[in-house]
This record gives sequence, structure tokens and C-alpha cells, in this order.
Amino acid sequence: MEKFKLNKKTDTPLYIQLYENFKTLIEEDQLENEKLPSIRNLANSLGVNNVTVVSAYKLLEKEGYVYSIKGSGTYIRKLPVDTISYLEEGDMDLMVSGILPISNNSINFASMSPTPDLFPIEEFKRVLIEVLDRDAGLAFLYPEITGYDPLRGSISKFLKEHYNTVVNKEQILITSGGQQGLDIISKTLINPGDCIFVENPTYSGALGTFKSRGAKIIGIPINENGIDIIALKSYIKKYRPKFLYIMTNYQSPTTYSYDFRSKEELLLLSKEYGFYIIEDDFLTDLTFSENKKMPLKSIDRFDQVIFIKSFSKIFMPGVRIGFITLPNKLFKEIIKAKHTTDISSSGYLQRAFDLYLRQGYWKNHIEKIKAVYSKKYKLMTEGLDRLSEYGVSYIKPDGGLSIWLKLPKNIDSINIYNECAENGLAIVPGKVFFVDDSIYSNYIRLSFGQISNEEIIEGLRILENIISKPFRDKESNYLPFI
Amino acid sequence: MEKFKLNKKTDTPLYIQLYENFKTLIEEDQLENEKLPSIRNLANSLGVNNVTVVSAYKLLEKEGYVYSIKGSGTYIRKLPVDTISYLEEGDMDLMVSGILPISNNSINFASMSPTPDLFPIEEFKRVLIEVLDRDAGLAFLYPEITGYDPLRGSISKFLKEHYNTVVNKEQILITSGGQQGLDIISKTLINPGDCIFVENPTYSGALGTFKSRGAKIIGIPINENGIDIIALKSYIKKYRPKFLYIMTNYQSPTTYSYDFRSKEELLLLSKEYGFYIIEDDFLTDLTFSENKKMPLKSIDRFDQVIFIKSFSKIFMPGVRIGFITLPNKLFKEIIKAKHTTDISSSGYLQRAFDLYLRQGYWKNHIEKIKAVYSKKYKLMTEGLDRLSEYGVSYIKPDGGLSIWLKLPKNIDSINIYNECAENGLAIVPGKVFFVDDSIYSNYIRLSFGQISNEEIIEGLRILENIISKPFRDKESNYLPFI
Ligand SMILES: Cc1ncc(COP(=O)(O)O)c(C=O)c1O
Ligand SMILES: Cc1ncc(COP(=O)(O)O)c(C=O)c1O
Repeated sequence: MEKFKLNKKTDTPLYIQLYENFKTLIEEDQLENEKLPSIRNLANSLGVNNVTVVSAYKLLEKEGYVYSIKGSGTYIRKLPVDTISYLEEGDMDLMVSGILPISNNSINFASMSPTPDLFPIEEFKRVLIEVLDRDAGLAFLYPEITGYDPLRGSISKFLKEHYNTVVNKEQILITSGGQQGLDIISKTLINPGDCIFVENPTYSGALGTFKSRGAKIIGIPINENGIDIIALKSYIKKYRPKFLYIMTNYQSPTTYSYDFRSKEELLLLSKEYGFYIIEDDFLTDLTFSENKKMPLKSIDRFDQVIFIKSFSKIFMPGVRIGFITLPNKLFKEIIKAKHTTDISSSGYLQRAFDLYLRQGYWKNHIEKIKAVYSKKYKLMTEGLDRLSEYGVSYIKPDGGLSIWLKLPKNIDSINIYNECAENGLAIVPGKVFFVDDSIYSNYIRLSFGQISNEEIIEGLRILENIISKPFRDKESNYLPFI
Repeated sequence: MEKFKLNKKTDTPLYIQLYENFKTLIEEDQLENEKLPSIRNLANSLGVNNVTVVSAYKLLEKEGYVYSIKGSGTYIRKLPVDTISYLEEGDMDLMVSGILPISNNSINFASMSPTPDLFPIEEFKRVLIEVLDRDAGLAFLYPEITGYDPLRGSISKFLKEHYNTVVNKEQILITSGGQQGLDIISKTLINPGDCIFVENPTYSGALGTFKSRGAKIIGIPINENGIDIIALKSYIKKYRPKFLYIMTNYQSPTTYSYDFRSKEELLLLSKEYGFYIIEDDFLTDLTFSENKKMPLKSIDRFDQVIFIKSFSKIFMPGVRIGFITLPNKLFKEIIKAKHTTDISSSGYLQRAFDLYLRQGYWKNHIEKIKAVYSKKYKLMTEGLDRLSEYGVSYIKPDGGLSIWLKLPKNIDSINIYNECAENGLAIVPGKVFFVDDSIYSNYIRLSFGQISNEEIIEGLRILENIISKPFRDKESNYLPFI
């Protein structure tokens, strides 16, 4: 502790002096230990009040130099933030946004992103090189703000062919992925304090974007067949939302899909009450049954639905190409928002993706990944069905990349998350997807985008071990879940 | 006019009915003429008041179906917005943001973007293919949010080597171009109503982004040697800005560069009053004299400067790769803002750019484009010097891609813009860069990023023709400018 120089005779409060001392030591990387001394120890050895130390630590935390873990202590924040395996509620948004990476040794039931072995890399390499030969420097100019014109054409065709959806190529804006679509729509439609509706639970990346614009966010419950229309109606009358954000097929995280009636009712409501529907589509293509799913956009005759497409989960995330459809009335404003966001998306990648679609690779690719994922899905569901005796249940999505697992009521998903992490299994606690501090804390999301068939079996074994514990520990203090 | 069905007996006001009629006709593409009937004609033939027609047209305009040109009439807005050669003040932001493209037949003195013949396409093609062979699918995963780690390393080295600037690779965030850097910083630092400072005049793309966050924007005059420090000081005391946005070298649009003293004073002020400095660097490399320019970041010992780099004007705009430096205190928040913006930038292009830098192509490339541009610069300045007899003047930047031309006081740059456009010359009227409805309307920006040497000579001939007119028309009604 001889490192600290406190001067009781100056005007500067002691806690500020202590803060400054720590700050310098951290910046100069002079502290051996990642963990700061305990409050009591430090206060004693410096001959100051506990409060002085607490205040200094608080200030350090506020300024981003340290972070604290409840019941454990205060730690220096390394740049970049390292993997931490123990999750506090405050860290959940970090984890979901990928800032806290998942430990490499874990079996990854947390991620939906595909692995490189499923990327159509040969074909894509071919079109990438073809574009270089064909267009040379033209591929590296600023493309039109709305996107590379032929790609807009291919996408219009793609929509017709695969989703039975008619959208003129002039009404398509190419974005740098689906997330950017959300960001641009937020910029166009949300002013601070505006009210918007989302399904509850929903995709946390969307919540982040909406919050960043200062939206007042209302969550509407979602059921097996779609959003709760009755609840929605009563909320609409009360709040008059700017828009409703939904995922109609294999919703994240619930995996639920809208039936036709829910879609139709929703569309009529949006027309009647004049709010837009933002339809985020990232998985429609991944159906494992015979019934092809269609987006809500396919029946939108009122120009009320803004369709956002992400190709990250069904193609390759690193291509960073997605698109949105432009309602007539918002055309100009959305284009402006795109411009202030990043001027335009990479023309080179747009040109390559255009060729990829034009040369007809898409269909084969989707068939291929569907075959792989439906096998994983089968393994997952068979394994999970065996766990029903421990009180867990779920609704079979018959498509997509996740299972939304309901645990017995008295289980908190954060505890399960932590127990899984300790045992080398990464899952996502359901809580991170809810708008409010939800009472529904007994859900977890298990995804099979990143894992091998062997890992599915091993992962489910670990999970079973954890959730069956109360049943095995009859003599212990545990109460059984149910 | 038999197309219109108005019903005077219902509750719906006539102008709403007329609006609905037009809306349907426009949506169904049933109007032959792009121009709507004149107000008087339509009112007469429908037997309604002029005001009814005016109100209907206003509503159509508000909803984006039509636009009006003062003194000319009201026109259907085609999607996408077409080139219009005649500029109204309200369209200026559209033009600057590239939504109104420049006619292909014009000599383009408006754009700073380089042409493909200056792109190092052979070398870049080589690294693009090398990445595919080396990394295959890995290149198409989501990269780390902060960017591809080796590229962050190369950029740290690049900063040291070319700008004498020490920034740890952990403090670098890769962005999808410089504009995205501005957007991410805005999200991190601006809450609605926050006050920020900019140079006046400044880059309109930055203004767009700041406005979109609801910032209160104050413009501080910029002089030949940098921002007006005295004005700045008095404004700081009054407004306490969140940050000051500047371009220290070859500022856009003025082309002025900061001298050392201005940089140093600025840095001390930012430390004293606790505001960040956002340094947007897009041209530092393009010096035509012996004196190498350095960014303000190179002397930043307080972690007060956020350095944003755009490679669009000195490399290739379509690569969409730029970076920003991360102050320690904002690290976590900026990363979160990046995530809500587009998750991460294309890993494939990041990997290729990394190889490009590592393999040492940069220096040659810059030397090559400097040689080309300095020749164009010489042609421009020699030509413009000959125009001084008509009362135009400018300060020689000795670098960069533009000239900021001062016209005689009584000339409005919008008029000159329109006259130039009519004569096949695209320029940018100075007005679009000012924060306020400025009295400084007698500036135009002439850029030589897109034009050949022959076009420079021809363009200057056209310009001379226009600005010398009052001098030639001695007998006419014109008063000479000076
Ligand atoms: C529901 C949903 N929408 C949109 C996105 C955005 O994806 P991207 O920007 O990679 O296209 C994601 C990514 O995880 C997602 O899960
Ligand atoms: C001053 C300035 N900063 C930043 C940018 C953004 O460029 P980019 O996003 O292409 O890197 C531009 C582009 O015109 C610019 O002029």
C-alpha cells in the first residue's frame, strides 16, 4: 500500500485523491493484481474511512477503470474486456451483444451463427473473382446510396420467387446487414419519447437500437401463434405507437411463428391505426416441414410493412449485406438516414452477392443447410424430450436454429446460466430478451447454429446433469423443482 | 379533369378528397404528365376554391408524392428521385448527400471522390484473392466487434509511421468508413438537446448525423490557420459543448489547415473545459509541399481527441473501411454503439486491407496519387489566378482536393450554381456547408477529384465565361460585381 500518496492537508477530498492514485496506477499498468484490495483492508492500512474507499471505487467504476462483481470484489477492466465466465445481471447486455465473448472451451448452445463449413465458399469465391475481372475499379466506387442497381433487381426477383412477395426494385434499399436496417428505420421513425411496440420477449439487438433513439418501448406478449392481438389492441388505443417490431417466422427467442390469421389481423390493425410494422426476417427460409413459411410482407397491400432481411444466419454473417423495403411515404427520409449512417454499403460485396443470386446458387445452398440443421434439430428435440420428466417443456418450432426451453417456475435462468458456464456449456438466459424486468425468468434459449452433432449430445448430457440435480439429491437441502 | 371525383355533400373536406384522388392516380401511375395542373386551372375546372387545390398539393408534398419548384410548378416525385438540374435551396441537402446525382454530361467540379484509374486495383485484387486462399470461410464469420485484430495492429503501426501518432491497437475500432465513425460517436455522445460545436462552414454529412441525434449545433468561424480561438473560448463558457468537431488538415470545404499553435491551444481548452475533440481526417496525406501535415491526435496527451479516419478520398471509397480511436473512458459505450449500428464491419474487406498495409503498398500508392493530384492542383490554381481580375480570390491550400473560391460579395452562390449547371458545369455552392442561414453566400467549392486535366481547362473556361459576364455586358443592364 506504500504506492498510495494521500495528503490530508489539501482541499482535495481523500476519495478523489485515492481515485487519482488508482487511475494513474491502472493507466500505467502498475498493479500486479487484477483484483483491487478489499475495502476494509485498504481503509485500515491507509487509516481512512471505509466510505472513502467505497467512493473512490465507485468513481473508478463510473469512469470505466474497474468493474465490480457482487459478493466477489472490484476488478480492473482490461481493454478489451476479457471473457468472464460468471454473469451478473448488469453484464447481460454485454454478453448478448457479443462484447463478452464465449469461452472457447465451452460447448456453444448460445450462438445461432453458422459455422464456416456451411458457407458456400467455393461458389462465393468464384463470384468474388468474377466481379474483380469484370468490373475492376468500378467495384470500389461509392455505389448508389440505395444500393447496386442490379442487386436490387435480383432481390426483387428473390422476394417473388422465395417469399411470394411483390416488391418493386425501386423500393429496395441495400443495407450493411439486418442490424443496420433496424438502425436506419429507428433513425427515420423514432424521436425521443416516441412510443414503439415490440414482441415480449424479443431480439435484444433491436432493443439496443430502439433504446439508443430514446424510444419508450412497450412489450406485447407473444404466443404460439403470434402476438397477442387482444393485448395489442388495448395497448394501441392507449399508446398510439409509431411502429410495431416483429419477427413473424421462428421469432427470436421464442421460435414461435405467426399463423395466417394473426398476420391478417395485424395488417388490418396497422392500417386502421396508422402504425408501421417492422418485420425482421432472418430465418423464414429454414423450414424443416413441408409447409413453407411466408412473411407478413407477402400479404401487405397497404404499404404498411417494412420488411428487413438479414442473411447472416442463412448465408454468411461476414458478407454484411441485407436489405429493407421502402414504403412510398418514407422513401426520401429513409435514404437520408442511410446516408448519415454510412453513405452506402460496400459495392464490391453487393456485386458479388448479385452474381451469386443471378447464377442460381441460392436454392441448392438453402437445401444443403436445411438438411444439416434439420438433423441437428432432430437430435436436440429427441434429447430434450427425454428431459421432460424434470419438468422442462417447449413448443416444437419445426424450423429455425433454436429451442426456447421452459424450466420449472421456481428456477431462475441466470442461475442455470452460471451453473452451465461452470460446467463448460454456454446457453442464453431468457431474461435478456424481455423488455421489462420480467417475472418470466424460467426460460433459456438453446441454439444449434455453432455446434456439432457430438456436442449436442454432450451438451444435453451436461444440461441434464444440472437440471436433474434436485431429483438426485433427495437427501440434500434441495427442494425438487416441481 | 374527368378523373377527379369530388363529393361536396360528405363530411370529408374537399382538399382531402382531392388529395386522395391524386394519391391514387399517382400510386397507380395514371397521370400522363409529370407536372400537376396549375392551381388556377384545376380550381376553375373543378369549380372549387384555389385554396382547396393549394391545400391538397401541400398535403401531397408533405407526404412525399410531389415536390414543387418555386415559380415553375408541382411535379410528381418519381422513385428514385431523378437528376434535376435546377436547384432550389430546399434541395441542397439532397444534392450534397448525393441523392440528387450530378448529370453525366456535366464537368464534375463538385466531387472529391477519386476515379477508378487511381485505384490500386492490381494490388488490391491480389490481397483479396490471397485472403480467400488463406482464410476461406473464416473471412465470412462475424468478425470481432472492434474489428479484425491484425488490422487493428496494422493501423496502430500506420498511425505511428505516417502521422507520428501513438495509439495502442486496443484503442482502435474499425468502422465501415469515416461516416460511420461520425454516426457512432454521435450515438455515444449526443443526447437530444446537447450542445456541440462545429467549424463553420463544415462537412454537411457530419451535420446530417449530428442533427439526426437532436443536437443543438453551434458553428464557430474558421480562419486560415484554424478555428477562431477567441470566438471558441467565449462560446465554450456560454454553452459547455459535449464535443467540438473539426478537420485539422484541408478542412472541408474551406481547405484551411491548422497551424501548430491553434492545435495546441485547442487541446488545452478541451482539457480545461472537459469536452472531446472529434478530429475527422480524410486528406492529411495529400500534401503537395515539403511540409508534411500532422493530425491533432499526434500531440494529444490527455486522451481528449477522438480521431476518425476515412480512406475514401485517398484510397477507394467502395472499400468502406475506416477507423476511430477510442478514449479510455468511452471504450465500452462506443463499442455498444457500434454493435447497435451494424454489429461489425465486413471481415473479408478488413482482412484484405490488413494485407494491403502489411505488404507495404501504401506509400507507393500515396506518392502516385499525390503526383496526379498536384498536377491537377497546379492547373486549377494557374487557371483561377487568371480570374482574379473579376474579383474572385482564394487561399492556396497546397494540398487536398478542392479550392474554396470567394466570389465578389454581391454574388449568390446558388445563382452561380444554377448558371454553371445550365452550362454543363457542376460545382458546390458554399451555402450548403454553413450551419446557419449564412450571410456568406459568395463562396463556391471547386474540387478536382473526378476530373481530367482537359476538363479542368474546359471547366474553368465555362466558369470564366459566367463570372466575367458583367464585365463584358457593359451596355447591358448588369452592374459589374465590384
Ligand atoms: C432477429 C435478428 N435480426 C437481425 C439480426 C441482424 O443480423 P445482421 O446485421 O448480421 O444481418 C440478427 C442477428 O443476430 C437477429 O438475430
Ligand atoms: C470530411 C469528410 N469526412 C468523412 C467522410 C466520410 O467518408 P467515408 O464514410 O466514405 O469514409 C467524408 C466523405 O465525403 C468527408 O468528406
